[in-house]
Amino acid sequence: MAEVVTYRPIGRVESGFHEPAPPEAFEGAISRIVLDPTLVPGLEGIEPGQELVVVFHFHRVQGYELRQHPRADPARPLRGVFALRSPRRPNPIGLTTVQVLAIDGNVLTVRGLDALDGTPVLDLKPPGPPSA
Amino acid sequence: MAEVVTYRPIGRVESGFHEPAPPEAFEGAISRIVLDPTLVPGLEGIEPGQELVVVFHFHRVQGYELRQHPRADPARPLRGVFALRSPRRPNPIGLTTVQVLAIDGNVLTVRGLDALDGTPVLDLKPPGPPSA
Repeated sequence: MAEVVTYRPIGRVESGFHEPAPPEAFEGAISRIVLDPTLVPGLEGIEPGQELVVVFHFHRVQGYELRQHPRADPARPLRGVFALRSPRRPNPIGLTTVQVLAIDGNVLTVRGLDALDGTPVLDLKPPGPPSA
Repeated sequence: MAEVVTYRPIGRVESGFHEPAPPEAFEGAISRIVLDPTLVPGLEGIEPGQELVVVFHFHRVQGYELRQHPRADPARPLRGVFALRSPRRPNPIGLTTVQVLAIDGNVLTVRGLDALDGTPVLDLKPPGPPSA
């Protein structure tokens, strides 16, 4: 497990969210994903209305605990981080399924992305089939 | 977009798949995820029967094209890589929702993981809510 993997962001989120907020705050939020312009051919075939999984890096998070109170609520019993979607995790990778509203050059407008302004985007891909 | 993000694998896949294969080959496959033993407290609360999203690194992939024939089938028109789940992508991150069959110390037995033996695992998390 010694080696590491390194990724280069493919783009950034532009959103109205500048500080961490609970998931409800992002409900229905409309954001933009501004892609590296050299990657625009990679968007071919993405259509408004479809769903897309956004893989992103929680760039504002520092550190983690292996056991956490869900939603940082001390009234809720500790659980393992891999049983939670907390951003405070060993590798701070976020996954959100969004709806594509529009594509204009290197800018995707999407609904439902719970990511702060400036968030590095690592990948976009269609949702997979249901689990086997 | 200049900076990079770096992750350290949390574990490895042990599976009977040693060479790339089409998605059907993995259907219903049973694999093991062997976690770094220091991370075991992070599994607390994961139960057999539940679904888990496995985030992994396509470690055998070299390079990518921005437009690809789906499933490398030249009869199918080229599409953008972000409209496909091809492993040949700018950041070779794989996402698969699996079913947890068993947890034994630092080893999870799962069904439905389409990853080769030795694949570095970056994260595990419960599936998210449906998109907004």
